Formats: sequence, C-alpha cells, structure tokens
Amino acid sequence: MHVLITGAAGMIGRKLLARLVADGGVAGRTIDALSLVDVVAPEPPPGFGGRVTAWAADLSAPGEAARAVQARPDLIFHLAAVVSGEAEADFDKGYRVNLDGTRLLFEAIRALGLTERYGPKIVFTSSIAVFGAPFPEAIGDEFFTTPLTSYGTQKAIGELLLADYSRRGIFDGIGIRLPTICIRPGKPNKAASGFFSGILREPLAGQEAVLPVGEDVMHWHASPRAAVGFLVHAASLDLAPLGARRNLTMPGLAATVGEQIAALRKVAGDGAVRLIRREPDPTIAAIVAGWPRRFDPRRALGLGFRAETSFEDIIRVHIEDELGGRIGG
Amino acid sequence: MHVLITGAAGMIGRKLLARLVADGGVAGRTIDALSLVDVVAPEPPPGFGGRVTAWAADLSAPGEAARAVQARPDLIFHLAAVVSGEAEADFDKGYRVNLDGTRLLFEAIRALGLTERYGPKIVFTSSIAVFGAPFPEAIGDEFFTTPLTSYGTQKAIGELLLADYSRRGIFDGIGIRLPTICIRPGKPNKAASGFFSGILREPLAGQEAVLPVGEDVMHWHASPRAAVGFLVHAASLDLAPLGARRNLTMPGLAATVGEQIAALRKVAGDGAVRLIRREPDPTIAAIVAGWPRRFDPRRALGLGFRAETSFEDIIRVHIEDELGGRIGG
Repeated sequence: MHVLITGAAGMIGRKLLARLVADGGVAGRTIDALSLVDVVAPEPPPGFGGRVTAWAADLSAPGEAARAVQARPDLIFHLAAVVSGEAEADFDKGYRVNLDGTRLLFEAIRALGLTERYGPKIVFTSSIAVFGAPFPEAIGDEFFTTPLTSYGTQKAIGELLLADYSRRGIFDGIGIRLPTICIRPGKPNKAASGFFSGILREPLAGQEAVLPVGEDVMHWHASPRAAVGFLVHAASLDLAPLGARRNLTMPGLAATVGEQIAALRKVAGDGAVRLIRREPDPTIAAIVAGWPRRFDPRRALGLGFRAETSFEDIIRVHIEDELGGRIGG
Repeated sequence: MHVLITGAAGMIGRKLLARLVADGGVAGRTIDALSLVDVVAPEPPPGFGGRVTAWAADLSAPGEAARAVQARPDLIFHLAAVVSGEAEADFDKGYRVNLDGTRLLFEAIRALGLTERYGPKIVFTSSIAVFGAPFPEAIGDEFFTTPLTSYGTQKAIGELLLADYSRRGIFDGIGIRLPTICIRPGKPNKAASGFFSGILREPLAGQEAVLPVGEDVMHWHASPRAAVGFLVHAASLDLAPLGARRNLTMPGLAATVGEQIAALRKVAGDGAVRLIRREPDPTIAAIVAGWPRRFDPRRALGLGFRAETSFEDIIRVHIEDELGGRIGG
C-alpha cells in the first residue's frame, strides 16, 4: 500500500511516520511506498525498506495538490495545517493553507476520479477548536460547531467538505477531532495552551515552568502517542457504518491543572512540583475560559478509539517516548 | 441607506424588494439607493423614488463581487444561490456559486475594510438543508450540521464563514435558516419538495396536483411572506447579543401532509381536495424521509422572529399575495 502524509514534518506527522515504519503496515496491509510532504522537506524515515518520496510544498500553491496525489496513494493522512495562533494572526495564510489547501487536495483526488477508478481513504486531523463556548458540562457528539477562532472555522469547513466528498463517493474520509496534545515535546512556546504541557515537561527535565491560570482550570487532553493511535485506528476502520457523519470527537482525559500537578507529584516527586512557578495571566485565563473542558465522545469510544485514562499515564508516555525512560535535568 | 440584494430576481428576492419599497425603509432608516444583482438582471421596482442600479452578474466571476460592493452598501441581503437540485446535479457549479460566490462577496467587503472604515450588515439566507437525518423529535438550536446534500454543505460553510468574518469585525452578519417555503408560487417543478406547495397551489387554481407521499409525512414550513419578514426583521436586529453564534433556525410550522389537506378543505372546500391525485413515488418518499420534520427554534423566537401558526394562515397568505384574494381556476 502507498501512504501519503501531508504535514509529515510536524510533531504528529513525525510520530505517525515512525509508528507506521515500526508497524511495517497499516489497516492490515504492508506499506511499500511512502509520500511525505510538508512546507519543509520531511526526513525520510530510517529503517523503512520501501520507496520513499519526500518533498517540500505548500498544498495551496498551484499544482502542488495534484503532485501530491499523482502517484495515487491508497491512504492519505492529511495533517498539514497552519496552527491556531498563526491562523488568527494571519487571516489570509490561515484560509489559504487550512481551507484552500484542504479543498485543493480533495479536488485533486476528484479530478483523478473523473477519468479513472480512484478513491483513496483519507484520515483528516480536525480539532476540538471547531467548538466554541458556552458549552454543556460534557460536549456530546451532536453538539454544534461554533468556532471562536479562524483555525476552528477552517477545520469545521474541512470537516464539511470531507463529509460531502465522502458522501458523493469521491473518497472515503474520516475526520478526527484531536484533543489538546499533552505532553507536547519540544521547547516552550507562546501558544495560550502551552502551559498545559509546560508545567509537566519542564519540571520533568529539571527546568522551571510558569503556570498562568488557576488549578481549577479543566481541559481535554491526550498524549502524542494516543493521537497517533487515533490516526492509525481510523485508517483501519470500515467507514461505511459512519454514514454521512464522518467527523468524530476523539476520546481524551478531562483533567484540571490541579490533577495534572498531583500526577506530576506521584510520578516525579515534590521536587518537580516545586519547579512550577505561579504567575497569573488574566489574558491567558480569559482565552482558556472559552475552551472545551470535557466531552462525551460515545461514537468514537464505540468504534474502539482509546486515549489515556489517567494523567500519570500521560506523563509516563512522555518519559518513555521523549526522555528515554529517565526523569530529571 | 443603501441596500444591496444579491439574488434579487429570485422568488424571495422579488418579494423582499417589493416589501422594502412598500415600507420605504428598513431597520428604521429610509432607503435612498438599491443595488440589485442576479444572474439575470433584476427588474427595477416600480414606485421607488431613490437610485436603483440593477445588473446581471455571477458573483463567483472575477471582479463581480468587488463590483457588487463598490458603492459601499450599508445593508446586504445575500440571497444568491444555486438551488439544491442543481447543486447536487452540477458539483462544480454548486461549489462555485454557493461557496466561492459567498466567500468572494465576503472577501470583497474585507478588501474595502483594509483601507477604509467599511463594515456593512449582512443578512445571509441559509437553509434547514444544513441538517441531515437522523434527527431528534424536534431539532434544537445546538444540534449539529451534517448535511446530506452539497447544497446543504455549501450553506453550512457559508454560515461558518459568516460567523468568523463577523467575529473578526469584517462585517456584522446574521444567517437565517429558512424553512421550506410553502406555498411556493409559480409553475409545478421537479424538486422533490415541490408537492408540499403543489397540493395546495394547484387545487387553489382549479388544477389537479399529484401527491407522491403518504399523509403522515411531516415537514417544516413558512410562507414566502413570513420568509421576507424574517429577512426584514434580521436587518433591524442589534446583532451584538448573538455573540459568535450568528446562524439561526427560523420558526416555522410543523405540519403533516394530512394537516395541509385538512387546511385546504377548510379554506377551499372538498372540491379543491378532490383535485389531489395520490400517486405514491417511493423515490420521493425516500428523499423526504431524510428531511427535518420539526424544530425547536427558541433563539429565533426569543429574538422576535415569527412564522405562521396554522396552515389555513399559510393558504390565506397565498390567496392574498398571489391570487388577488380569489380562489378557483
């Protein structure tokens, strides 16, 4: 099977690639070719015996979407996107990459299908940013999408296109609404959500971290490993039973900041917890107040999607996957 | 005030225009200029003393959206759209007109706002086609949009764009999800929904009509006059209290075909009812089975939107507005 990953150089893209190569296949079939595209050329994965084509491209640029599907991939993971903060800061870029890039990819597939038999499976990463406050206590699978960011709007539009193109038989798509990814590896960043990972990642590495909100703030989390698991599981599903409702909120863990800190204490001790510096930031607190706290993702659970069920597990995943099993700076 | 109507030559467009001219103003302000655009040039309305510019254009064609807003209308009724059946039959045309045309109009407004102070009010006609079965008994204001047609998909995307552009202060928009319009004036057509109007309109004109479904089929209706009332009321509302949730399901009347026929009997007698010929059509019955039956449009009711509350009223509106007050062929 030939697999295309867009956004293959991103954090989730690289982890997905590593998982696919380690598994050797996906959806019960061997992977013999990989196409990897991102705005910077993705690294070909070590240890993969099949054919790899990796190149740098913006799918919203003329001809690039057609080039991405030229080799008729059987399975497409469409992860490429401008992130939330950037899509809010740069209106044109967000709509161009997140909306036009997605639509052009879908159109490139449709163009092939007009003259030959071609209809790949597509796994599209959406986000809980398609939802906007006010929320019920737990957000159900039939709750409406009223995003409060341009990024969320672009993802919600991508979901609608995915469902319509799937309904019309152009491809076989599934949209995966990812929880906030925690613990996000890498350097601290200025994203409003950065502290959810930072208050764990930095102390686990012996570094100080800033907590800008109160301990009662609750949010919806899953590890990078769980996120990759969702994508791989989605690729293996028979999507016909989804009917026209192709977009699913993924399972996650609803946890307060206080619960995150308690889990850190259990796994890494009081010393780690003492590295968290409280520095209230009303701006960040106000942004986070509009975010989802908890979902009731029955459809996804019924289809076998699974996330972590404790924050200790989320922390242990980070220690295993990012720190070589060892805590401390 | 300067008012632009896109789709001004359509059924609702013409009735809206007549109402605005009869009222002389809208939202408490006098109308001194009208811009009217449609794919065929709209007729300038008789009896209007202000400036009228009417022209034929497809808003999705290059430059046409910019031309439509060149005169900086204060209020825009964006009604232009390819209808459901055509958008399903012609994929490219539906997406071009309903999605690209709408986005280009919104972008033309944004382009003006980048260099000057410009941010009109926009009333956008959406549709209950943004919803797709299965449904709860009554569809609430927070139910998700999973359209089963490309038309419904395009309208749902228009709603998302409208909300995001409004949130960002580019314009001040409201989306109005119209019920099925009944009694639709004019000739019988091949739309799957045509019989809902046909079984009343044709007998009221002394003509035979075909009923392809059972009397227990329930659907969600409002008269053309009520639809125009929604648009005019929307134009007069302060939209700030809507926050980011700019799209509203309009009130309507949930009625079975049997209730429609009973109302026809009350208003026009047994002779009219005998003109309805039962000719079951399983294809039409299957399509209609996927349509909404009833809504619980609390937000719109709370904002003062009103539809008919009996089918006799819907029939009387037709007799007054289309038949000069007289029944019979």
